[in-house]
Amino acid sequence: MGKSPIITAGVIIIGDEILSGRTQETNLAYLGKKLNALGIHIIEARIIPDTQHSIVDSVNHFRTNYDYTFITGGIGPTHDDITSAAVAKAFNVTLEENAITAERLKKANATETTNRARLKMAQIPKGAKLIDNPVSIAPGFQIENVFVMAGVPKIMRCMFDGITDRLLAGAPIRTISISTNIGESTFANALAELQRQYPEIRIGSYPYFRDMKPGVNLLIKGTDQAQLTELQEKLSAMIIELGGQILDQ
Amino acid sequence: MGKSPIITAGVIIIGDEILSGRTQETNLAYLGKKLNALGIHIIEARIIPDTQHSIVDSVNHFRTNYDYTFITGGIGPTHDDITSAAVAKAFNVTLEENAITAERLKKANATETTNRARLKMAQIPKGAKLIDNPVSIAPGFQIENVFVMAGVPKIMRCMFDGITDRLLAGAPIRTISISTNIGESTFANALAELQRQYPEIRIGSYPYFRDMKPGVNLLIKGTDQAQLTELQEKLSAMIIELGGQILDQ
Repeated sequence: MGKSPIITAGVIIIGDEILSGRTQETNLAYLGKKLNALGIHIIEARIIPDTQHSIVDSVNHFRTNYDYTFITGGIGPTHDDITSAAVAKAFNVTLEENAITAERLKKANATETTNRARLKMAQIPKGAKLIDNPVSIAPGFQIENVFVMAGVPKIMRCMFDGITDRLLAGAPIRTISISTNIGESTFANALAELQRQYPEIRIGSYPYFRDMKPGVNLLIKGTDQAQLTELQEKLSAMIIELGGQILDQ
Repeated sequence: MGKSPIITAGVIIIGDEILSGRTQETNLAYLGKKLNALGIHIIEARIIPDTQHSIVDSVNHFRTNYDYTFITGGIGPTHDDITSAAVAKAFNVTLEENAITAERLKKANATETTNRARLKMAQIPKGAKLIDNPVSIAPGFQIENVFVMAGVPKIMRCMFDGITDRLLAGAPIRTISISTNIGESTFANALAELQRQYPEIRIGSYPYFRDMKPGVNLLIKGTDQAQLTELQEKLSAMIIELGGQILDQ
């Protein structure tokens, strides 16, 4: 079986409120799951404040290092929403008012004052393609391999679900999870040996506490279902042999 | 009133399971809240896979750019736990078995096989100071301005709470939150004007959906309580003037 090319992605999450711990970030896990299913691996995520230089630096690093970059946050109407301007700067293009968006924003609104603020959300980097926002009109945008979406999870999810047909999918990454009650140290050596035997599968070992009891989740990830199933059986046998139990997830 | 120096931090979260969306990251929000209370600002967080080059690169970038770097994850006994070795490499020092830790790990354990694996957790970069693990023995460590802690939230929290006396605190950052039912566009211009009037306070505007209703949280952050209270009153007046309500949080 031939190897599929690995398609990579980076995620940039913009917002002071995440870094200060006021808001629990949840967009990354959503994107991680959805992209995994499309065979796209997130290689790195950065959470950065809404300052221009940090956005420009991260965008330029990510867009040249990963196949796709997904950005969430900072595209609203207030003074601290600077993502669109910073992404335009990273691409060295200007911001332009998108006529259709401007019209839609105006139609949905009554007063002169709010219009001025809302029209900021129609300012899109030149050459960018819109990403539809079915929740609250103001769109995201795609410029080359960079996708810019809202930070509000409800809106981000709708936006992402609307752009999946623009993404080149890789071989779907399949994950099998095996949970056990024996400690990591018990099987660390056997696990390292199995990792050597299956270099194309990524074996991860993640200890946890649940209901005050320790346990370990073994995750095996790869694109070859037959190999995964084979390894799953070997892992189960290893756990039983070491006197452990395989737990329900 | 004189300006306090700003103390900065970066957070590096190591683990494939976070990037693939299998595990919801929660350590950042914990660290954000705790560090804020100590007057230490998280400037950037990176979530990276357990590969050596990504850890080395991020550690070296962070430790020279921020006052403190906090790392979580990858210090267990299995083959995918490479954080200690990678941090040692970033500092160009060797790993050394810490005798006290080795003794404690051996005492808590019975068999020859598990000991070999567990002793990996006693390998600490030369010159590092231990961070106590009251939950499961295996320690974290501090090397210069870099603090390495476990990824399991329960253990990470105990470890962090044990090192706060090693941190130089800044002026505590106070945050006031005002929630309203009017849209961001309504007050975007007035808010920008207030931001200009209070350059030392950071005003953030964060829209949300709750119980299917949109709202906005205004967060104002700074170290000068008198200024914050003054601005809070102005923001409340602004909301009322624009026909909005101030909501309970």
